[in-house]
Amino acid sequence: MEKADIIIRADYVLPMEDDMAVIRDGAVAVKGANIAGVGAFDEVIKEFTSEKIVGGKGKVVFPGLINTHTHAAMVYFRGLADDIPLMEWLQNHIWPAEGKWLTEDFVNDAVELACLEMFKAGVTTYCDMYFYQGAAGRKLEKIGMRGVLGAGIIDFPFTGYASSVDDYFVNAENHINNFKGSELVFPCIAPHATYTCGPDNYKRADKLSEKYNVPIHTHLAETQFEVSETQRHYGKTPVEYLESLGVLSERMSAAHCVWLTDNEIELLAKRRVGVSHCIESNLKLASGIAPLPKMLKAGVKAAFGTDGAASNNDLNILGEMATAAKVHKAVSGDPTVVDSKTALLMATRWGAEILGLGDKTGSIKKGKLADLVIAGLQEPHLTPLYDIYSHITYCLRPSDVETVVVNGKIVVDNKRPLTIDEEAVMARAREWQEKIKS
Amino acid sequence: MEKADIIIRADYVLPMEDDMAVIRDGAVAVKGANIAGVGAFDEVIKEFTSEKIVGGKGKVVFPGLINTHTHAAMVYFRGLADDIPLMEWLQNHIWPAEGKWLTEDFVNDAVELACLEMFKAGVTTYCDMYFYQGAAGRKLEKIGMRGVLGAGIIDFPFTGYASSVDDYFVNAENHINNFKGSELVFPCIAPHATYTCGPDNYKRADKLSEKYNVPIHTHLAETQFEVSETQRHYGKTPVEYLESLGVLSERMSAAHCVWLTDNEIELLAKRRVGVSHCIESNLKLASGIAPLPKMLKAGVKAAFGTDGAASNNDLNILGEMATAAKVHKAVSGDPTVVDSKTALLMATRWGAEILGLGDKTGSIKKGKLADLVIAGLQEPHLTPLYDIYSHITYCLRPSDVETVVVNGKIVVDNKRPLTIDEEAVMARAREWQEKIKS
Repeated sequence: MEKADIIIRADYVLPMEDDMAVIRDGAVAVKGANIAGVGAFDEVIKEFTSEKIVGGKGKVVFPGLINTHTHAAMVYFRGLADDIPLMEWLQNHIWPAEGKWLTEDFVNDAVELACLEMFKAGVTTYCDMYFYQGAAGRKLEKIGMRGVLGAGIIDFPFTGYASSVDDYFVNAENHINNFKGSELVFPCIAPHATYTCGPDNYKRADKLSEKYNVPIHTHLAETQFEVSETQRHYGKTPVEYLESLGVLSERMSAAHCVWLTDNEIELLAKRRVGVSHCIESNLKLASGIAPLPKMLKAGVKAAFGTDGAASNNDLNILGEMATAAKVHKAVSGDPTVVDSKTALLMATRWGAEILGLGDKTGSIKKGKLADLVIAGLQEPHLTPLYDIYSHITYCLRPSDVETVVVNGKIVVDNKRPLTIDEEAVMARAREWQEKIKS
Repeated sequence: MEKADIIIRADYVLPMEDDMAVIRDGAVAVKGANIAGVGAFDEVIKEFTSEKIVGGKGKVVFPGLINTHTHAAMVYFRGLADDIPLMEWLQNHIWPAEGKWLTEDFVNDAVELACLEMFKAGVTTYCDMYFYQGAAGRKLEKIGMRGVLGAGIIDFPFTGYASSVDDYFVNAENHINNFKGSELVFPCIAPHATYTCGPDNYKRADKLSEKYNVPIHTHLAETQFEVSETQRHYGKTPVEYLESLGVLSERMSAAHCVWLTDNEIELLAKRRVGVSHCIESNLKLASGIAPLPKMLKAGVKAAFGTDGAASNNDLNILGEMATAAKVHKAVSGDPTVVDSKTALLMATRWGAEILGLGDKTGSIKKGKLADLVIAGLQEPHLTPLYDIYSHITYCLRPSDVETVVVNGKIVVDNKRPLTIDEEAVMARAREWQEKIKS
């Protein structure tokens, strides 16, 4: 009999492996940071014993949700400006606010609020593009969140962070070295977009990504403006342009990918670039609706991203799943696309895969890291229950998330965060709010 | 000093009257079923005293949400079948399930679950189209929900409910008489749709609606199938066809209105027909996306409906607000449409107006019925806070709803339903689930 640190029991366990098994009265044994066993409860307890058994009747367990694109620290700008055109939003509100407030302290404080929100909504890994990722990484190690933290690269200086292009790369390389071997923080290099990053910087970022074998994360083909700018400068559409630079690879995940030609979809599939589908942000900023069903059909691997809370306005992957599963049906005229199983695959295993963490997390499999969500199924809006996948995609809400495990540690225990001082984080957020709105 | 039954205090009170005032540190005095006063807390307590003061710091108060189109009892079919074409869904799943299970007992039990879900999500009035509305109405009076209950009319018999067209009308007229003078239940007559209800029945329904001055509620222009069927039979598109029958009037609210010509939008505006916009249902069933911004611009009064939980899959008006406010921006390419104030107006005052209850509920105004929601603003996903309307439309979730007042009575008190035995309702729902899935 092997001793496990935690045994999680639930009416439904959804490993999200290829067979899409639904284990009724199932269990997951967690030992250290890893999943030691998964199967029917009766079988698991033949192999494992534990002093800590959590979960129980009326619960479902699924892999921790993965937010493949955000700017976590922008949570402090949530709802600062809405319902206005993108360039007005950026130029008159977001960029001035960033110019005025964005410091290491800001990131340190804001990231904790973002993680608190994400933990409570069942997110166990997120991929970020921003600055001061050292502060973010130290915070994540402290509170136990998993992150793929992309050090932003742009062509122009950003006061306090980088006075030259070289500075961005120095910061990025230091960031990579600082978190070498971290179990939670996976450094990444993040050239911003084709209209803010020249060809040399994309190539240099790709080289750095190759040298250290770290992911590369970028915005891509988000708006029609971006497409026309890229065409004007380089005579190519964004994906074709990056292909011409030779930087499309399996190491890359690209956020948005709204405006794509059929050829570009083929390129993304062929080069195995992962796509972070940020539907709610794209809708709200009127950027457009990405051709997700077409991408999936072409073999592009896609997952969900919330984008920053300044644009969305929350960090809720369950919401992205429901929105995407619904919107693409109407847009394509086909009610069978983005079905409930596909939505949960995108939110879990495929998310891990596009971030280069496919062998580590994203499904409930012996040997993988224990990143898990236990949710309750007993609320009126989840009753009756005929199909568990349908309920998770169309009905489950962040408030149904009860217990969250990251790297084998319980970070939310029956809705109570264990690694974050919620009251302090909220008080700090309100202090920043008073400064920012003044 | 006047004695009030309840004084509600909150950081923000949103009356949703024409001036769109935001009252900081505001209060609402409730006396009997009515709102006796609203304003700054300091002013309200000069006029009113009460033994019961609820709400407080970190709260917002707004008018109860109005769900202008649902089939409440279908909540028992939630998630029974998803991700399949509409006709397959109807013919192979929903209609057989209704044929097998739909009885007065079913409606009696199912409606209570639907109301429990809606109460907890801040819905205080809903408009329904279904059968056995007598059972539904008695339930609503018992639990204190406000409803505009439409007795369904179709051309063909429904075993157990109506063996002829005359039966439907007899049932409808009895229903109208049964609830005459009810404070909570407003009877309504509900011809199903242009492809299930012939011209004589539409005219007869309109006559009945006129005779008793009750609302008339119908599905209209939901799918392309419906448009082509209507054209094939009557040589006209659905709205033009109803215009030719002379049944378009201010008494009518029409659900869906997805496929409309510009002329039909003008007709809806001219005849003052209210539109129930059911965006999540329309998306999920791949019906299409209604031209809401165009309708609003033309002066059509629109509000939100969830449709039945079998199609949507929940009864969450806050979700409809967020989805509509986002989707229409991308579809129209204009990030200013369906802004956060418009979304909350649609969910409250405009909802009351299209149901013929504009003088009774839908805003916080002295003399109107006290239908109110108190929500908490202290969760991470609502922090920081710069714009209260933005937060309600884009961030607020059903789980933030704390206290709900209908007709002056507290029906949910700090998340605890007072008029519904939640455990019993859930147990009954699970009994039905076991029968239905067998």
